[in-house]
Amino acid sequence: MKTRSRNPVYVFVFVSALAAAFCSKTIAEPLASWNDAGAKQAIVSFIKKTTEPTSDTFVPAEQRFAVFDNDGTLWTEKPMYIHAYGIFSEIKRQIEADETLTKREPWKSVAEKDASYFEQLYSNSEYESLASQLFAAPFGGMSAETYASWAKDFTANFKHPELGVGIEGLIYQPMLELIRYLEANEFLVYIITADEGAFLRVVAEDLYGIPPERVFGTSVREEFVIENGEPQFVRTYHVDHLNNWDGKPRLIKKVIGRTPIFAAGNSNGDQQMLQNTALGGGMSILVHHTDADREFAYDKHTDKVMPLASQEGWVVVDMAKDWNKIRADGSE
Amino acid sequence: MKTRSRNPVYVFVFVSALAAAFCSKTIAEPLASWNDAGAKQAIVSFIKKTTEPTSDTFVPAEQRFAVFDNDGTLWTEKPMYIHAYGIFSEIKRQIEADETLTKREPWKSVAEKDASYFEQLYSNSEYESLASQLFAAPFGGMSAETYASWAKDFTANFKHPELGVGIEGLIYQPMLELIRYLEANEFLVYIITADEGAFLRVVAEDLYGIPPERVFGTSVREEFVIENGEPQFVRTYHVDHLNNWDGKPRLIKKVIGRTPIFAAGNSNGDQQMLQNTALGGGMSILVHHTDADREFAYDKHTDKVMPLASQEGWVVVDMAKDWNKIRADGSE
Repeated sequence: MKTRSRNPVYVFVFVSALAAAFCSKTIAEPLASWNDAGAKQAIVSFIKKTTEPTSDTFVPAEQRFAVFDNDGTLWTEKPMYIHAYGIFSEIKRQIEADETLTKREPWKSVAEKDASYFEQLYSNSEYESLASQLFAAPFGGMSAETYASWAKDFTANFKHPELGVGIEGLIYQPMLELIRYLEANEFLVYIITADEGAFLRVVAEDLYGIPPERVFGTSVREEFVIENGEPQFVRTYHVDHLNNWDGKPRLIKKVIGRTPIFAAGNSNGDQQMLQNTALGGGMSILVHHTDADREFAYDKHTDKVMPLASQEGWVVVDMAKDWNKIRADGSE
Repeated sequence: MKTRSRNPVYVFVFVSALAAAFCSKTIAEPLASWNDAGAKQAIVSFIKKTTEPTSDTFVPAEQRFAVFDNDGTLWTEKPMYIHAYGIFSEIKRQIEADETLTKREPWKSVAEKDASYFEQLYSNSEYESLASQLFAAPFGGMSAETYASWAKDFTANFKHPELGVGIEGLIYQPMLELIRYLEANEFLVYIITADEGAFLRVVAEDLYGIPPERVFGTSVREEFVIENGEPQFVRTYHVDHLNNWDGKPRLIKKVIGRTPIFAAGNSNGDQQMLQNTALGGGMSILVHHTDADREFAYDKHTDKVMPLASQEGWVVVDMAKDWNKIRADGSE
């Protein structure tokens, strides 16, 4: 350096600052779609006390993990989960191609528009059987590659029946900003969905900038086979991990091996994931669907998490009050 | 920039180069412990054609994944797996504390020094039961935190019975250099072991620089519970994923969601993992234990992989010929 300048210290500082700017992602105005209210202030304050080296509660960058639920947390889940639209449209397509399928489940109930079979599995707590019937059975014996193509086609052509928008129109701009803000603060962000992970992986990189290796969800057991010199994964008829309730922290433990210090969810299915982080000293946020004008207002499946939010100090995000914008494309 | 220099273009180029130097990890002499022979040349050539943007077989950085087996690939596995030393020492300690344990398995067979019960499970292909007996049963009901402490203590105090060295003395310097070389070329490196992932995670960061979220192996089902406001994972008595043979590519598919373009293994347990990468167009390497002087020479469990290596074009690493140094501490 000394040979290159009359003021080596100045140049060194200048170059280091520039190098830092090149290396880390900086954001012009983080959380721009968040009103300057309680939730935003709590998030910014948490990030500061976590990332400032002089802070008592500083967390080294390599230990900064954040987990996000997907349905109702990153994108709209009403009136039905996007994943479910995909499953039912595929089941209907299969019935049209082969009516003999309607002799057995899950095709039978779908053909008869009778939810009682599924409801009974649910009320008997046979959640894995229910998930196997819906996530696995319609795609059983299919290669993982074919499944991914199907998911790609379905999501590319999906139009929301009430909002009339495609899949990009369903994601929440403030949450996208939150992901970028965490990343700018050197968090590694994972999506932990109750949907099938293999389904969400197909779109998560384009929609959220989260690559497949950080998207996890419910999984269908796949077999590994080599046919004519081609390695393949073939889907079975069984769900081997149901990623809801306690399944979420169990999966997080398996994939991250540590407790995330930031977690975001919106319903009872996220309870244990949010508790794990909040009781472990991190920040949990609960997206509360309060905005009937711009999205949907509802409290279905929040009876367990709403009381816990106040008991355990989670941050409740009031969509109507905390967000000045909901959609990335400004369509609200 | 213009206000700061008489030659803005020069300064921009200079600063960019410096920023690049700060951002990426460069290595003075990569693969220094590899002789300039076939294996090293093949690896270097593969990395070049994968990372040079003008190459026909260029792979974008975000798709560069590498997977490594552990026992016999990254550290010595003879005369017995390190993980197994840990398990048997814990079983013996438990028997000393409570002799009534010897009424049932696996304590009974260990007390009687009789391997036939385990051998029978193996020959009956009851691999998951066998793994549950050894990986899960001795630690059943224990919290994941306590297990991690036990693993930390065990590995910290372990002395290899024949080599007389601690755990750091067992790792292969050339493989450590290979990991660093791949990382310098923007690969994301994962360890995919048949040992329990939770065991290896305790030491992998210190030994190999690989953090927990990139170390995966056989897993024991854990329950998530909250006791007195403390979230905890409690180990059960069951292995829920056996990470060997086809279990390896199945786990890799789950955690990475793509086919790694580089894979390293050493025995039949790695067969499908190596095939998946090699047949998918990537590079698979097989570490062959040929060095009786500096390590151990053996061909146990290589009868399936050795013929495949030549059929499918894997690179066989001849430890005696390809490595000029084996141990990181130079103890050979």
